[in-house]
Amino acid sequence: MTFHLNAFLMGVGHHEAAWRHPRTTATDVLDVAHFQNLGRIAERGKLDSIFFADGLAAGPRIERNTLTIFEPITLLSAIAAVTDRVGLIATASTSYNEPFNLARKFASLDHISGGRAGWNIVTSANAEEAFNFGLDARPEHAKRYERAGEFVDVALALWDSWEDDAIVLDEEAGRFADPTKVHAIDHEGERFRVRGPLNSPRSVQGRPLLVQAGSSEAGKEFAAQHAEAVFTAQRTVEEGVAFYRDLKSRLAKYGRAEHDLKVLPGLVPFIAETQEAARALEQEFTDLISPDYALRQLSTLLGVDLTEHALDAPLPPLPSESQIEGGKSRFTLVKELAENEQLTVRELIGKLGGGRGHRTFAGTPEQVADELQTWFEAGAADGFNIMPPYLPGGLEDFVDQVVPILQERGLFRTDYESSTLRGHYGLGHAENRHTAHPVAVGA
Amino acid sequence: MTFHLNAFLMGVGHHEAAWRHPRTTATDVLDVAHFQNLGRIAERGKLDSIFFADGLAAGPRIERNTLTIFEPITLLSAIAAVTDRVGLIATASTSYNEPFNLARKFASLDHISGGRAGWNIVTSANAEEAFNFGLDARPEHAKRYERAGEFVDVALALWDSWEDDAIVLDEEAGRFADPTKVHAIDHEGERFRVRGPLNSPRSVQGRPLLVQAGSSEAGKEFAAQHAEAVFTAQRTVEEGVAFYRDLKSRLAKYGRAEHDLKVLPGLVPFIAETQEAARALEQEFTDLISPDYALRQLSTLLGVDLTEHALDAPLPPLPSESQIEGGKSRFTLVKELAENEQLTVRELIGKLGGGRGHRTFAGTPEQVADELQTWFEAGAADGFNIMPPYLPGGLEDFVDQVVPILQERGLFRTDYESSTLRGHYGLGHAENRHTAHPVAVGA
Repeated sequence: MTFHLNAFLMGVGHHEAAWRHPRTTATDVLDVAHFQNLGRIAERGKLDSIFFADGLAAGPRIERNTLTIFEPITLLSAIAAVTDRVGLIATASTSYNEPFNLARKFASLDHISGGRAGWNIVTSANAEEAFNFGLDARPEHAKRYERAGEFVDVALALWDSWEDDAIVLDEEAGRFADPTKVHAIDHEGERFRVRGPLNSPRSVQGRPLLVQAGSSEAGKEFAAQHAEAVFTAQRTVEEGVAFYRDLKSRLAKYGRAEHDLKVLPGLVPFIAETQEAARALEQEFTDLISPDYALRQLSTLLGVDLTEHALDAPLPPLPSESQIEGGKSRFTLVKELAENEQLTVRELIGKLGGGRGHRTFAGTPEQVADELQTWFEAGAADGFNIMPPYLPGGLEDFVDQVVPILQERGLFRTDYESSTLRGHYGLGHAENRHTAHPVAVGA
Repeated sequence: MTFHLNAFLMGVGHHEAAWRHPRTTATDVLDVAHFQNLGRIAERGKLDSIFFADGLAAGPRIERNTLTIFEPITLLSAIAAVTDRVGLIATASTSYNEPFNLARKFASLDHISGGRAGWNIVTSANAEEAFNFGLDARPEHAKRYERAGEFVDVALALWDSWEDDAIVLDEEAGRFADPTKVHAIDHEGERFRVRGPLNSPRSVQGRPLLVQAGSSEAGKEFAAQHAEAVFTAQRTVEEGVAFYRDLKSRLAKYGRAEHDLKVLPGLVPFIAETQEAARALEQEFTDLISPDYALRQLSTLLGVDLTEHALDAPLPPLPSESQIEGGKSRFTLVKELAENEQLTVRELIGKLGGGRGHRTFAGTPEQVADELQTWFEAGAADGFNIMPPYLPGGLEDFVDQVVPILQERGLFRTDYESSTLRGHYGLGHAENRHTAHPVAVGA
């Protein structure tokens, strides 16, 4: 058994102060060549995929960091042009797009990349985003997921609207495509009315790999129904195993098997020759965190104004998850972290600086490999979402120092065995509803 | 004085039967390498730009041709990765996008390409498109232009929301950007409410080059107010001069100078060593047109069902332009062509096959150069929208055989003198409203 590796890439690194550290070049955040280089490094390591998150508002990041300068699909197309195998996953919102446009864009990326497109489906939890799309507040959590469900239904129907062999290219007869193999979708739903077909023939993978990252009840149910890979933040092996079992146990009722969905917990690795050096490196980054920026970011995350709060005091009492309309699972993760470890605000900020709630691990390449193996063998993961704290160095160290150890241990591929993203994740060809063989109810 | 050249690229050529001709490879319509190659050829010819049109419905093209497989911004990003100088213009709709998302995408393409992005602003005249976005019919012509006007206002405000020097990158002070140079836009209009700022700093050009192609009254007024380049279909020098004068005369009331807007009539060139050979080549393509497909396309264009109409009879009486809700100027152009030249339906289809209303010209490289020079010197054009009937050969012949003649005559640049699309078209830096010097009212 081998596992999967995704590189979650963000600016010059996940650590919020990464751009200030001597190991990065701050201007790289604006340089497409930097991102193309990251794609090449990931491919050198035979990683399954790279991933760019997104948000549709500048938000409070303006002063201290700007994480989402490039729209991810546009960026990944430029990276597709300089890579051959690595998968290309982009976040896109179901709340602030039209399904026809988004289905088209992912079909385009899949055509352009030769079958390497993936969609991280988000419902856009941030109120700042709502203000850019004519709303006075973010839509409620439940409403967002309702829209996401119908949105995905429409997108899936559009991606199936051209059968795999609809393009005929019969030059003699002057027959470009076979219209009997191209289908209107005639979707008439609560939120969308879309006639179709898509204005793009079936792409290499049929449709992008579907990825999801919300861990609320609604998020987990959505993932169980639709997702093929799940990014998740888990802080201990025990929590990881519980989440893994929980999610996998929900698949059967949608007619899906356990191997149809890959669970990928996040890890922010600080890598150095000795554990001491790795910890010192992490501390260098922690020391660069700006407390006033971190307080503002924490306030947004928790829905409580902490900007005047004393840094060395514990957190004030927090609301319960049910009162939160934003990212519910992230809220609960941070709340539990602060309460269980009895952290002061300053300590909490330090813990969050690297991965905004994801697990940070400082160690030697061997120790990082051990960690991943432990989680994998404990049944907490099908693979990992590697979040380098600084870039490109943090990705290079992982690829050049950790990946070879994983390969030696037989835990990770030594070369690509597939040309598509779905193939890397061990998923079969996406069946088209118009030509699929009958399957069990609910599949 | 020199002129400008845009290559308008479509699949394996503008001629609807191009994919059936031995000079093309039909599978190229699905191959990003083909489109990247076209970008490189255009750059070899020092062309100002390449352009991809778009439509948001498969429409009646399924059986005979598929012209818009790739979403243009995504495609141009992959072309940006393999070119350095040529401008990259994409059609995008104001009727079926959100201004925040589209402004972001063009900002991304401008960052990624180093200042080469251009936006051909369309209002989506086709009813088939409306059905993919929850509507029962296309919005009225006037309503579409009202929305387009507000859409462009919002996009321009978003592109100005970051001042040119808002990014500070002061690593010592931990100051990524200067928040006093990043502005909310607080747009509250009839159709859009957008708070801003954009989630992307000011791009190389400040904003994309704005292009427009509608020639109805509303279209011309919109162009005079916003466009920096206009693609237009004109069949004679006299009509070209009249259109050119008409459009330029509208600029003053918006505080703009004549050189602020470049007029680019379309030309579909069939190029060969002799005029006879060029005409024979054109005839080869005409002979490949499928009449039943052409009748359906003509029906859509004219809003009259011609699918049962006799091919060798003249057109039936047509409605007036005011009764048309689709592309008004294209309707009138085709109507006048058919009536003035007393064409049968078959003859009209032949004339339209190459360029859907644009002027087709068959001749030697010298003759094509003469034609362009005549139009330019008569005051009908600031440059040309070259629409190769087949690809890549039709573009290669133009670049390798016609461009050198234009260069010898001093009509076209022998090398790029700028690194940006705005620069190629002789337009100055796009001023930011927050830092611009006071200018005349209306500017």
